[in-house]
Amino acid sequence: MPQTPPNALTATEAAAAIREGRLSSTDLVEACLARIDEREPALRAWAHLDPELGREQARQRDADTPAGPLHGVPIAVKDVIDTADQPTQMGSPIYAGYRPAADASIVSLLRGAGAVILGKTATAEFAGTAPAATTNPHDPTRTPGGSSSGSAAAVADLMVPVALGTQTGGSVQRPASFCGVFGYKPSYGRINRAGLKFAAESLDTLGWMARSLDDLALLDAVLSGEAPAPLEPLENPRIGICRTYLWERAEPSTRQALHDAADALRQAGLQVTERELPADFAGLSPVREVLNDYERARAMAYEWSHHRARISPQLSRSIERGFAMRHADYLQAQRFAHDTRVAFDAWLDDCDVLVAPCVNGEAPKGLDHTGDTTFQSLWTLLHAPTVGLPTHRGPHGLPVSIQLVARRGDDARLLRAALAAWRILSPQNQPGCRSAA
Amino acid sequence: MPQTPPNALTATEAAAAIREGRLSSTDLVEACLARIDEREPALRAWAHLDPELGREQARQRDADTPAGPLHGVPIAVKDVIDTADQPTQMGSPIYAGYRPAADASIVSLLRGAGAVILGKTATAEFAGTAPAATTNPHDPTRTPGGSSSGSAAAVADLMVPVALGTQTGGSVQRPASFCGVFGYKPSYGRINRAGLKFAAESLDTLGWMARSLDDLALLDAVLSGEAPAPLEPLENPRIGICRTYLWERAEPSTRQALHDAADALRQAGLQVTERELPADFAGLSPVREVLNDYERARAMAYEWSHHRARISPQLSRSIERGFAMRHADYLQAQRFAHDTRVAFDAWLDDCDVLVAPCVNGEAPKGLDHTGDTTFQSLWTLLHAPTVGLPTHRGPHGLPVSIQLVARRGDDARLLRAALAAWRILSPQNQPGCRSAA
Repeated sequence: MPQTPPNALTATEAAAAIREGRLSSTDLVEACLARIDEREPALRAWAHLDPELGREQARQRDADTPAGPLHGVPIAVKDVIDTADQPTQMGSPIYAGYRPAADASIVSLLRGAGAVILGKTATAEFAGTAPAATTNPHDPTRTPGGSSSGSAAAVADLMVPVALGTQTGGSVQRPASFCGVFGYKPSYGRINRAGLKFAAESLDTLGWMARSLDDLALLDAVLSGEAPAPLEPLENPRIGICRTYLWERAEPSTRQALHDAADALRQAGLQVTERELPADFAGLSPVREVLNDYERARAMAYEWSHHRARISPQLSRSIERGFAMRHADYLQAQRFAHDTRVAFDAWLDDCDVLVAPCVNGEAPKGLDHTGDTTFQSLWTLLHAPTVGLPTHRGPHGLPVSIQLVARRGDDARLLRAALAAWRILSPQNQPGCRSAA
Repeated sequence: MPQTPPNALTATEAAAAIREGRLSSTDLVEACLARIDEREPALRAWAHLDPELGREQARQRDADTPAGPLHGVPIAVKDVIDTADQPTQMGSPIYAGYRPAADASIVSLLRGAGAVILGKTATAEFAGTAPAATTNPHDPTRTPGGSSSGSAAAVADLMVPVALGTQTGGSVQRPASFCGVFGYKPSYGRINRAGLKFAAESLDTLGWMARSLDDLALLDAVLSGEAPAPLEPLENPRIGICRTYLWERAEPSTRQALHDAADALRQAGLQVTERELPADFAGLSPVREVLNDYERARAMAYEWSHHRARISPQLSRSIERGFAMRHADYLQAQRFAHDTRVAFDAWLDDCDVLVAPCVNGEAPKGLDHTGDTTFQSLWTLLHAPTVGLPTHRGPHGLPVSIQLVARRGDDARLLRAALAAWRILSPQNQPGCRSAA
């Protein structure tokens, strides 16, 4: 069996190899840098990358005795998350060259666990919808999805094992699906957001992408302050198949992925039931737009006041809608969101996880947009944790994920259920572009 | 009747005078600066004040036609809230001279309404409990309360009509009560927090202090995007008197204030009932400590990692407790908080507002502490909006407030109920130190 090149290892594998003296952080970082050197001209996944800074961090890790569970492992950071040693440019000319005074909480905690913060990955403007220059690693004429575009592309293309993203609509799971990697959006409130540039505060959720479920769980443990332990599959997970109220809009490949997953899980002997969301949940999609625009306008008040000419037309429209909104309508949207979250927890009671569409079809052609967020945004508004599994391929051979959803706070169970499902649904192709490597 | 000096005007009064050409922003700011010049050596309310910057803003306002509802009105900003034109030093040597790249959302919105951002007010270290140097304007040997110490003292001492604060435990209402001014902690989530240094993200709430209820409502309208309108008292508010589970710990002056308020409201013919919180609500106080420490540790991860020696012993202990905490205990605390919030909304159903103790007695002697947060922190955890009314005086003639509390999202009704209550409870003495001016 040929040895896996270091840059193709998962974070869990790489950390074990470093801990056991089989790999140095320097060799791992060099392999990632070589891959980036080769592929970045086509991929444009990085907003900032200083190879020497990466090498220096790796040398320091190699000089220390491995202690933390991510010792020596490179991680990429979406460029709306503060880093004290690297610029944080938000995908906007307004913040060109901006260097924050402190690391974001999530960055500091990962460094504390031994991670090398390799660089900043390209983001749609302020984690919105105006695209980064990043291309899809499977097809350079297609979007990688957004807004965590560079993070998903870099992980899929074996440039780095794990990358941080954020989700306000569908910004973790959509690029993860389009690029064919695992995506994890924890429960709202699970991961501290100090040092994150807000898009819409009541929705913004930090998450990450990886090429293994172990890696999703590893970072979750580190950030929760738990001792990392091997991820064990949930025994006999009770699964609800949830087409959602958006089903009529789903493309054939997304429908096919859900049908196929339901069949396979049933055939494997799991308890699988069809679950239809209560009718009034259809209000989640428009209500998310209300919260998004109202909060976005206020989060961007300074930039809107001082740098309006350098804000994209699509973000400007969102801000204008937000400032034009009546406060009473915002309050009503907040109440609906709150009440529906409470109702969702009760409604889901007899299932461990839902299996739902993840994103609408394969990554579409074109780099002037980031695709449709509707299949993720209802779960974002519900504050529910989600995992995207790159289980399927569409008509062009491009990745199409399914999405697992659990109750707020049930993140640990969700990850274990995801592993149980993945063992049944795992395709021949590995996550990411490993087959193309 | 002698004319009120400009620095003793409320924001509402000053804005009207400027709009009607009876006062210039320059004259108002000069009056505030003169008052500061006179009193700041004793009060130490300001973390940063550049008189020329204040004058320049006032000149610009005077050169423009008044448009916004705060045109030309000076406002002070607690020093954990970002300002692009002034340092934001967090009450910590770690951030000495730190200048953020952007204004916080709340600052930018107030500027957009015409406000002059006069300076930064002293805060306890990172809005925690290690005191600022500020003294109580009623007695320089006593604490002004914290953590929004400088904001409350500056407003009480007629240095500025309105000042911004934050509340994670009791950091708005406690200094407001100790200094004898009105305090307003809106519902959690009402005011955008972009540009606020987090203490504990699931609790941190922006609020403000003023010498009139009109001013509390004026800023609330500006920040909600509503057209400001004169505050009208709620007709026949249904009032619940709530001693809370902390009653046995209440000092005589606090008990007396609540008893007296209840009697006066009843005698005025309002519907007043005694309301006892459900027994399990007593869990709110310890649960707030869990959330506070767990989230504080993570919010301060960078400073803890890079500047530990410059963090105070009391904040260090909170961070250490937070990092030592089990994630499962944090999750359980989150769930309790969530469930109790839902229960509170239902329990309060037949009242418009609660009247409850605000703070435990008068401002205590000494400047090495900021007083006891217990009587505010349960409401902070419930995410309920609160108004502090400076209705009473204690045995040393120092202010003792009562606190009004409403359901989440019922901020507008709370402010109107507060005005109805204030018209009955208003003492002879004016809020703040006007009598001492």
